[in-house]
Amino acid sequence: MILETTQQVYGKVALIGLGLIASSMFWAMKRRGVAGSVSGYARSEATRDTARRIGLCDVVCDTAIAAVADADLVVLAVPVGAMGAVAQQIGPHLKPGCTVTDVGSVKKTVIEAVAPHLPQGVHFVPGHPLAGTEHSGPESGFATLFDNRWSLLVPVEGTDPAALDRLRLYWERLGANVDVMDAEHHDLVLAVTSHTPHLIAYTMVGVADDLGRVTDSEVIKYSAAGFRDFTRIAASDPTMWRDVFLNNKEATLEILGRFTEELFALQRAIRTGDGDHLHDYFTRTRAIRRGIIDAGQDTDAPDFGRTKLER
Amino acid sequence: MILETTQQVYGKVALIGLGLIASSMFWAMKRRGVAGSVSGYARSEATRDTARRIGLCDVVCDTAIAAVADADLVVLAVPVGAMGAVAQQIGPHLKPGCTVTDVGSVKKTVIEAVAPHLPQGVHFVPGHPLAGTEHSGPESGFATLFDNRWSLLVPVEGTDPAALDRLRLYWERLGANVDVMDAEHHDLVLAVTSHTPHLIAYTMVGVADDLGRVTDSEVIKYSAAGFRDFTRIAASDPTMWRDVFLNNKEATLEILGRFTEELFALQRAIRTGDGDHLHDYFTRTRAIRRGIIDAGQDTDAPDFGRTKLER
Repeated sequence: MILETTQQVYGKVALIGLGLIASSMFWAMKRRGVAGSVSGYARSEATRDTARRIGLCDVVCDTAIAAVADADLVVLAVPVGAMGAVAQQIGPHLKPGCTVTDVGSVKKTVIEAVAPHLPQGVHFVPGHPLAGTEHSGPESGFATLFDNRWSLLVPVEGTDPAALDRLRLYWERLGANVDVMDAEHHDLVLAVTSHTPHLIAYTMVGVADDLGRVTDSEVIKYSAAGFRDFTRIAASDPTMWRDVFLNNKEATLEILGRFTEELFALQRAIRTGDGDHLHDYFTRTRAIRRGIIDAGQDTDAPDFGRTKLER
Repeated sequence: MILETTQQVYGKVALIGLGLIASSMFWAMKRRGVAGSVSGYARSEATRDTARRIGLCDVVCDTAIAAVADADLVVLAVPVGAMGAVAQQIGPHLKPGCTVTDVGSVKKTVIEAVAPHLPQGVHFVPGHPLAGTEHSGPESGFATLFDNRWSLLVPVEGTDPAALDRLRLYWERLGANVDVMDAEHHDLVLAVTSHTPHLIAYTMVGVADDLGRVTDSEVIKYSAAGFRDFTRIAASDPTMWRDVFLNNKEATLEILGRFTEELFALQRAIRTGDGDHLHDYFTRTRAIRRGIIDAGQDTDAPDFGRTKLER
């Protein structure tokens, strides 16, 4: 395919929303010349000002409509709950034949919210890059965020295979590995590997803060590694996560049910002093971790492979 | 005090158990000449062989009794459940006037298990350095593990103030900050900041592994940042953690009760679509994280301040 031998995958790319993911996409595009030009739009004037100041996007527009004009790829990178409204706004102004994708952490409800607003002749290929940090905003992005991470594409019924292939190549050029799955399966997998763990971390951090006999200052001073990792997770963007839980309700509630069931079994083992049960359980989880390292989804090094190498 | 102006705090230090903590203590002692000499003992012959091969300890002994001979400080660095048996064994062989400490994550039951075996004239000053990684064994230690971390000292009734001061100085020379608290409070604080978070991480990793409709391979491939952090926590030493939960039963069960209560409240918010409740909760936990960074207990950098700088 001719695209394999050139760097540029799309002529003009429009980024709607300029947070951690979109800004990282911009720097990753620049790194390898993946787009001819990149326009950007953010709802907040302060964010647009920041983007202009740090050179994020070739041009920052004051409206989403201006940003998508003549774009070959439009990336919706706003919180999941805002996707529908943005799609409604830009729908009539999209270039025929362009591709619209998104980076939302939930896929079923995003598809339901966005698809109805896109005109015939526009290709909708929902997506979700599995990458992030606890930081947010236009200044939090970096070019290597997607390197060797998975980006999931979730085509809807009738997706044009050529549009899917092109978007796959785009993500590969950004450094990611690409897999394709359906929306329902995506939402269940993410409920297990991301959404429920986040909710649990949020809860534990809240419990620590609530406890009267242990002061906040003690919690903060003496927080050991386990808790520190939870606080990092629980520092993620509140709006994004509110929307995730409201939009992946069914799968999250299912996994939460299983989680409390297993937690109660371990709680009972503690209460009854069943050391063998605990030891067996902890040995099994250690093996799972080893599998994750072997699969290359994390490193054994203390920086978790998240070092900012370049911009 | 004269000790302030010299590097050496104890003449001979004996390390009983040669895992992550003890080996890090050794390299931290060597870094600043904190001890005149260091003897070591591990129950497993393989561990002793490894220690000899990598130069861990000035002398590695084949019995705990040989290791503690003439020692000025004896450090019990074995799993919490093994402390009592070790104390019983070495008790009659301790040098009069020496100090015995430990590094267990639980203090009340360790004190109950160890204190009865120590002869009159030996100072018992229990301790707990709040530092670690998910790795274990004699090769996992590094000199900077305790730098700017807290080490808690938990004196028992009748502890000699001079022995306490000396041990405090020792930990400061190893790089740590030192605080003193009683055993009951220690066990509650740690239940909040470390023990319950670990149990939760173990549980979530187990749930992911159990789920039939999502394969292990998918969990591993698509594990996002939140889950990856959980797997790291859940990879910690199974024996150590079994003993922690069996020995800090009361406080852990109390915190688990509060945790499930708060989790159910968030679960209800998801079910009823109460976005404001979720957003408020997540905003509050973000502020707590900021407090932890401001208090210097973690860094904003992606390596979590755990970089191995030197040996």
